[in-house]
Amino acid sequence: MAALRRTLLQLSLPQIRRFASARRPSSLFSPLDDFPERHIGPDDAETTKMLSHLGYKNMDAFVNETVPPKIRITAEQISNSTIPSFSESELLMRAKNLGALNKPHKSYIGMGYHCAVVPPVILRNVTENPQWYTPYTPYQPEIAQGRLESLVNFQTMVMSLTSIDIANASLLDEATAAAEGMVMSFVSSGSRKSKFLVDTGVLPQTLAVLRTRAKGFNIDLVVADASSAIEDDALRKELCGALIQYPDVDGQIKDFSAFANSVHDAGALVVCATDLLALTMIKPPGEWGADIVLGNSGRFGVPAGYGGPHGAFFAVTEKLKRKMPGRLVGRSRDAAGKPAYRLALQTREQHIRREKATSNICTSQALLANMAAMYAVYHGPVGLQRIAHKVHGFAQVFKHSLEILGYEIVNKTFFDTITVKVPSAQSLHDVSVAAGINLRHIDEFHVGATFDESVSSRNLLDLINVFAAASSSPLLSLQQLDEPDAPAIPSSLLRTSAFLPHPVFNKHHSETEMLRYINHLASKDVGLVHSMIPLGSCTMKLNSTTSMIPLTWEEYSCIHPFVPFDQVQGYHTIIKELEQDLAKITGFHSTSLQPNSGAAGEYAGLCVIRAYHEARGEGHRDICLIPLSAHGTNPASAVMAGLKVVSVKVQDDGNLDLEDLRSKAEKHKDKLAAFMITYPSTFGVFEDGVQEACKIIHDNGGQVYLDGANLNAQIGLTNPATCGGDVCHMNLHKTFAIPHGGGGPGVGPICVAEHLAPFLPSHPTMPLGEKAIDAVSAAPFGSSSIHLISWAYIKMLGGQGLSNASKIALLNANYMASRLSGHYSLRYKNSHGRVAHELLIDLAEFDKKAGLKVMDFAKRLQDYGFHPPTCSWPISTCMLIEPTESETLEEIDRFCDAMIQIRKEAEDVITGAQPKDNNVLKNAPHPMDVLTVSDEEWNRPYSRRTAAYPLPFLEEKKFWPTVSRIDDAYGDLNLICDCPSVEEIATT
Amino acid sequence: MAALRRTLLQLSLPQIRRFASARRPSSLFSPLDDFPERHIGPDDAETTKMLSHLGYKNMDAFVNETVPPKIRITAEQISNSTIPSFSESELLMRAKNLGALNKPHKSYIGMGYHCAVVPPVILRNVTENPQWYTPYTPYQPEIAQGRLESLVNFQTMVMSLTSIDIANASLLDEATAAAEGMVMSFVSSGSRKSKFLVDTGVLPQTLAVLRTRAKGFNIDLVVADASSAIEDDALRKELCGALIQYPDVDGQIKDFSAFANSVHDAGALVVCATDLLALTMIKPPGEWGADIVLGNSGRFGVPAGYGGPHGAFFAVTEKLKRKMPGRLVGRSRDAAGKPAYRLALQTREQHIRREKATSNICTSQALLANMAAMYAVYHGPVGLQRIAHKVHGFAQVFKHSLEILGYEIVNKTFFDTITVKVPSAQSLHDVSVAAGINLRHIDEFHVGATFDESVSSRNLLDLINVFAAASSSPLLSLQQLDEPDAPAIPSSLLRTSAFLPHPVFNKHHSETEMLRYINHLASKDVGLVHSMIPLGSCTMKLNSTTSMIPLTWEEYSCIHPFVPFDQVQGYHTIIKELEQDLAKITGFHSTSLQPNSGAAGEYAGLCVIRAYHEARGEGHRDICLIPLSAHGTNPASAVMAGLKVVSVKVQDDGNLDLEDLRSKAEKHKDKLAAFMITYPSTFGVFEDGVQEACKIIHDNGGQVYLDGANLNAQIGLTNPATCGGDVCHMNLHKTFAIPHGGGGPGVGPICVAEHLAPFLPSHPTMPLGEKAIDAVSAAPFGSSSIHLISWAYIKMLGGQGLSNASKIALLNANYMASRLSGHYSLRYKNSHGRVAHELLIDLAEFDKKAGLKVMDFAKRLQDYGFHPPTCSWPISTCMLIEPTESETLEEIDRFCDAMIQIRKEAEDVITGAQPKDNNVLKNAPHPMDVLTVSDEEWNRPYSRRTAAYPLPFLEEKKFWPTVSRIDDAYGDLNLICDCPSVEEIATT
Repeated sequence: MAALRRTLLQLSLPQIRRFASARRPSSLFSPLDDFPERHIGPDDAETTKMLSHLGYKNMDAFVNETVPPKIRITAEQISNSTIPSFSESELLMRAKNLGALNKPHKSYIGMGYHCAVVPPVILRNVTENPQWYTPYTPYQPEIAQGRLESLVNFQTMVMSLTSIDIANASLLDEATAAAEGMVMSFVSSGSRKSKFLVDTGVLPQTLAVLRTRAKGFNIDLVVADASSAIEDDALRKELCGALIQYPDVDGQIKDFSAFANSVHDAGALVVCATDLLALTMIKPPGEWGADIVLGNSGRFGVPAGYGGPHGAFFAVTEKLKRKMPGRLVGRSRDAAGKPAYRLALQTREQHIRREKATSNICTSQALLANMAAMYAVYHGPVGLQRIAHKVHGFAQVFKHSLEILGYEIVNKTFFDTITVKVPSAQSLHDVSVAAGINLRHIDEFHVGATFDESVSSRNLLDLINVFAAASSSPLLSLQQLDEPDAPAIPSSLLRTSAFLPHPVFNKHHSETEMLRYINHLASKDVGLVHSMIPLGSCTMKLNSTTSMIPLTWEEYSCIHPFVPFDQVQGYHTIIKELEQDLAKITGFHSTSLQPNSGAAGEYAGLCVIRAYHEARGEGHRDICLIPLSAHGTNPASAVMAGLKVVSVKVQDDGNLDLEDLRSKAEKHKDKLAAFMITYPSTFGVFEDGVQEACKIIHDNGGQVYLDGANLNAQIGLTNPATCGGDVCHMNLHKTFAIPHGGGGPGVGPICVAEHLAPFLPSHPTMPLGEKAIDAVSAAPFGSSSIHLISWAYIKMLGGQGLSNASKIALLNANYMASRLSGHYSLRYKNSHGRVAHELLIDLAEFDKKAGLKVMDFAKRLQDYGFHPPTCSWPISTCMLIEPTESETLEEIDRFCDAMIQIRKEAEDVITGAQPKDNNVLKNAPHPMDVLTVSDEEWNRPYSRRTAAYPLPFLEEKKFWPTVSRIDDAYGDLNLICDCPSVEEIATT
Repeated sequence: MAALRRTLLQLSLPQIRRFASARRPSSLFSPLDDFPERHIGPDDAETTKMLSHLGYKNMDAFVNETVPPKIRITAEQISNSTIPSFSESELLMRAKNLGALNKPHKSYIGMGYHCAVVPPVILRNVTENPQWYTPYTPYQPEIAQGRLESLVNFQTMVMSLTSIDIANASLLDEATAAAEGMVMSFVSSGSRKSKFLVDTGVLPQTLAVLRTRAKGFNIDLVVADASSAIEDDALRKELCGALIQYPDVDGQIKDFSAFANSVHDAGALVVCATDLLALTMIKPPGEWGADIVLGNSGRFGVPAGYGGPHGAFFAVTEKLKRKMPGRLVGRSRDAAGKPAYRLALQTREQHIRREKATSNICTSQALLANMAAMYAVYHGPVGLQRIAHKVHGFAQVFKHSLEILGYEIVNKTFFDTITVKVPSAQSLHDVSVAAGINLRHIDEFHVGATFDESVSSRNLLDLINVFAAASSSPLLSLQQLDEPDAPAIPSSLLRTSAFLPHPVFNKHHSETEMLRYINHLASKDVGLVHSMIPLGSCTMKLNSTTSMIPLTWEEYSCIHPFVPFDQVQGYHTIIKELEQDLAKITGFHSTSLQPNSGAAGEYAGLCVIRAYHEARGEGHRDICLIPLSAHGTNPASAVMAGLKVVSVKVQDDGNLDLEDLRSKAEKHKDKLAAFMITYPSTFGVFEDGVQEACKIIHDNGGQVYLDGANLNAQIGLTNPATCGGDVCHMNLHKTFAIPHGGGGPGVGPICVAEHLAPFLPSHPTMPLGEKAIDAVSAAPFGSSSIHLISWAYIKMLGGQGLSNASKIALLNANYMASRLSGHYSLRYKNSHGRVAHELLIDLAEFDKKAGLKVMDFAKRLQDYGFHPPTCSWPISTCMLIEPTESETLEEIDRFCDAMIQIRKEAEDVITGAQPKDNNVLKNAPHPMDVLTVSDEEWNRPYSRRTAAYPLPFLEEKKFWPTVSRIDDAYGDLNLICDCPSVEEIATT
């Protein structure tokens, strides 16, 4: 009967695979919960209707006129036999089975990662809530005040705990944040002083990422005991900055006051990597002279997730604030004078500064930063200190117990980490792993243990008894453990200043109040839960519940990134399958999942190209050709990889100027390193000449980097390899359905052709071959936990579904282009009149005729309940609109109706029926408090109903912006990036 | 090293218990995530502030003047040693460990319960979403349009699938719904015809509940083959109705057309229990003459949950509609003429009709009905039919395969259930259970198998192979299974009519659209996620995330209620602990968790009392004394239990008139069965005389039923046993934090003194002793899955926390009473000026002076973002306000500020500053569309801002009602209870 015991739930994976593929297609025996029909918006009838509207008999005819035939691939390359599909329940079963292969050992590995305790109210209402995870980056602040407020809480929390003037809204991870700190130091020296000192106490993964990043800027890393090294005059002369870890990787807390003075005396900057929880007890870096403070906020309620995502924090002193990378949220005021939040100092960013930017950062870890901020709101200063005291107290008990057991403790000071000298690290390791415990394995004679909030007293006892057993001492009981009397931190290093006095951190401590605060903020923001977010180039599609569910299972969330390989077989199956599927989809050979954003992928891909040239003795190749129409991150990434950017022209029809490309490629043929191209182009068109362009580059010794931002248009129809590329990145948060999280996390893996595979990024904990470039992220597989989402997405759609999704994405965009084209000027289309998966409409005429800007149309769309499309990019007078495959015909029509109605409203301004400076577009959006002013104050030449309910569908479903149009300039001039204090609240 | 392998996660339960209690209190080794401080709103500082506001030095002094000393219990009776506490993470670990003891066997038991597949988008966004589970019953329809629309979808779904005129918004379970059908039949005969025919094909648990219910009404149940029995003229003469199961318990589908004619000829009603999924394929009961149609909607996406909760459906023909029990949602219009939903025909209900009501039903299973309705919205008619075809197809394949294996199939017709004759049911059972499969064990030679949506083709194969193995035949492979050509349902029984043509069931089929629909409806409703819901007598407190999390784990959700006992050891540990804890809290001996609502608990408790009297040869005792101030359900329940209600007077000070009680008890001493009393009284006061009242009853041979609606005021301070009761019910959805779900589920267990314990309800699958009364619910432990919530609540608070919660509930109410008393007339308080956990304010003066009714104040509170308190109950001119322990001082002050501001607004009407018929109270609430009318239409003597933003806090946090005040009378006159059709939508 053994055979019968194996229900599908208990089957091994290969068995499930075999069973699934043995199913007769569309038979009684097929599952009912196939994903494609739920993911793809239009049903068959709607698809037929749209095709017919466009004049096509069937989908093939449409695709043939949309995608150039010469780049089409065959169905086999993506068919279901290549990527078989799983139904939703089958996928959940597989995820469960794979999760069971991840061993839930208790980890004391530390090194910047902790087993965070997510307060359940935050888990359910933020992490697992589509109101929080489906919104876009808050570029439209009037419909994003909720998460902007939360991000300001994050900034405030960082500023208060670090005692530094200004913090951004998070970076990708601690290691890349440190790299940003290094580059800021270098740039602050006028890019003249090229030595950057790194203390030996810095995390090894941080050092690895610094190595990679230093290369592109020709920064000379000096790894040494910082306090001694700073005495060296030769070093001081060329020093731009120094990075120290506080407390350091081995747990030691050093007094860096004198060191900071020396660094400053040398005219360099002090960069400090630190730990937010420790800062509730130890003297904050801002109080002893650090200029830049950074770290991982993960232990504030964000699970380890086998490496991420977590929000890194980054804070700088006042004088550095305008050079700070990453998103910054600031307070400003709206048109009615009401306080309002929005992204500040956006002109610093790479989409404006392009190759002059020194960072390509264009995303933050918003969802994770929000979780961390909510954690601080929930616990408040007293609660945080209570947690810190417990963690520190456990470290004390551990140290004391081990000393009694006869062990030597290496570090004299500590917060949560103890380094122990042992007779044999290996035999201790064997004992601990057998007990389900992971320690940090430092070297042959040293191990480390780091404590976090999740450690129970039972866990502590078990841990101590590992050391007892290893030294053949009798096991201890809980009653034998002594509770320390006072913290063991030297008084000179104790924090004396108060932190987080702001009301928001001191009132939401009951679960009810916390829930209401979370819900209140969420209610201010537009997400995919409300309506289409047709953001060109951002592919805001369905983030299915099934793909999100396993993410918060503890089998996936509670895994430290540096655990032994055999403890993460489930994760590695998923990672391997995702790598293989992405390679199949792009037509390439190998994948690296390490880059944790699209821009990081660009950077990693270019570094791989550079390493390839170097390995062939052509390290001098440093020219990167980039079309003027490229994403701003492209030139910024190229510069970071040490390349020099040469721009390539774009023709009036939106296509790349092949002649200009050829002439520049030939001109620079001896130094040509790479060419970066986006396909379909950022103008939303499949260019015919892509293969020719790639050939020109190859003929001149360069490699082709294909920006995968627009991959959603390609899957199963063409692929980057067929187009002629050598490497591409993918935005898993676009094409592969990781939610945007209100501004992150993103994931940007790269796929490469076989000749580039040996150069893919390595990692200290997972070393690859000799040719591999150094790490580009802190964790070996980047933001591992969210890889599950894309893995599930691909597995549930299967080859056929992926291809159909791309076809419908193209159809939806073309239908929309057709509906809008009588009313708006469509900027680019191919010879058959087709666009790709997005469309660019030009609003220049309205400015000319009536002074109406792109932003006026965008803000007015908010009144219709829609998030505006991408504005003024890639052309300043345009909107770039991308509906994706997930939107139904009804929703697309609703959006088109809104756009057409706004066109009519604009006509009234053009004809003079409405004044140019006082009309529904200029005054948009219209929040409720504006609409309820007195009749005297309502000095507008249109009615309140016209403002609020311009189309009938709004009577049933209306989203209300919570503020009027926000004054960006005012906010940038009067930069305030923390939340209101007690005093401010008292005076309002 | 074995000892070390047991981390806390892996410890056995007794070990965890020992470990937890070995913790030194408040030491470093205690967990940080203790629940009481998150559950209880006010912190120490706020508590001190409130005590001082009331003039008390400490909590003890306050409690001593609030709770009568003579009924106080000692601390030991509830202390932490009696009910130890677990931290939040410890609780989750225990729930996980216990869940692992529930065996996830694949069940084919059927009998009205199925393993439902919950679409993930519904699971996450309805079931697990506090926006859906925290709201109250939609008595305030202007802030409840979302769930009212969803409940209308439920009604429409039932009406369309059953082809019956009108359906209610759900009942508790199929068995109690059948009992309601029986009583309706009886009442429809003028309570003259006492025979009720029950077909032998009816579910056994339904029959058991009918037996219990028949007793109270003296209905004579005739269990027989209905089609034959109806030929009996003697029966026909006395017949009030007949219940048939369609398809029946063994799977057979009979043609009941002729039978229905015969029943109608006899002047009786046809009651049909049926299955919604089957009705997509078989002829609906409404098309062959059924008058009342009912069943369990659980297979529409509501997990089995070891018995519930599920929404039972109940539909009747037009002529019966005003006699239908349960909640009914109807369409009406608002003050602006806009269509709007609200509860219809409320005058039918027991809180109005009291002992004249024939049902005590006062809740529905709103959350579960909403899940089922959403399931139908998501799948639509085509999807539902696809599911039905698969289920039916699998039954066909199974039948065919078994016939090939040589088995005899008993039922000739079938939808999803096959009854098989076997050589030995026991040996087949042994084989199947060993294979992880549960079949229905019918008798020695028969087993049954019922198919549902969750059965995969692999499951089907495994099942067939159980029968192959049992008959020593070779095992089959999937390829050997034949796919049927056509349904096996006789053509005369096939459904030919269309169903669910309404737009709402035909457009939300992509996950994106479904998510938006769910979110859109949720956005219309006020819940605990927004603000305090201070509903007197309803105890709307925090429903903590931790207690909600395990509910949707499949270890708890996917368990059939009739599985063998050894497969549910986890459930039984929880059930036993909850029973014991409730007994400790009430001071009683035993608990029954079977009643699945408070009213069902009352009924069960009274049945127990009756059985006790009968067992002592005093079955003639049938008088039940009930104070006039009692909940309307009390007299209704008494009547259902066969008791005659005699009312007892209440004094002007709100206390029970003890002299009236004594005189009536003595007058009826020979027939006195019971006395029902609520404590603290429904007027919100701890009466001094409760023990004396109980003694009077006991002295006269009666038993005391203590209504536990107000138990939240008692825990750890007094208890029903100490007060003098013999039995009490508890509302787990009030005191013990099960969320109200927007109108259900509720749970109403009863606790009894030792002498009553033998009479607690039995169940066919869990027979108790001979004295036990028959079942009161369809499942042996009622709504088992949500017992987890109350279990977690009690375990996390622990004895000390429970007691503190009650103290703070008293303090919050008294502080509120103090703040409001200068502005409103407080109706009752004790000799120290104290109220209990709620307060009653009298608004009669405003009606007298200015024509302002209670409802005007209530609707105006909506404009302030608050759900109004209980209105016009227990006194028509009053509001009953209960803040609970979960509200902070800040929130209570905010509510008081709103009430005081409304008092000022009322003053303006009293003084004539505002007209009596056109003021902010009379016109409340003010939805956005009303506020945005043109200046000409705004014919009100106050400003829009006064209407919308009467207090500053509304500028930041404003909830908008979506409709104006709803016209109840119009809706009752023009009763429409389904959602708009295609035609209606087209014409609007």
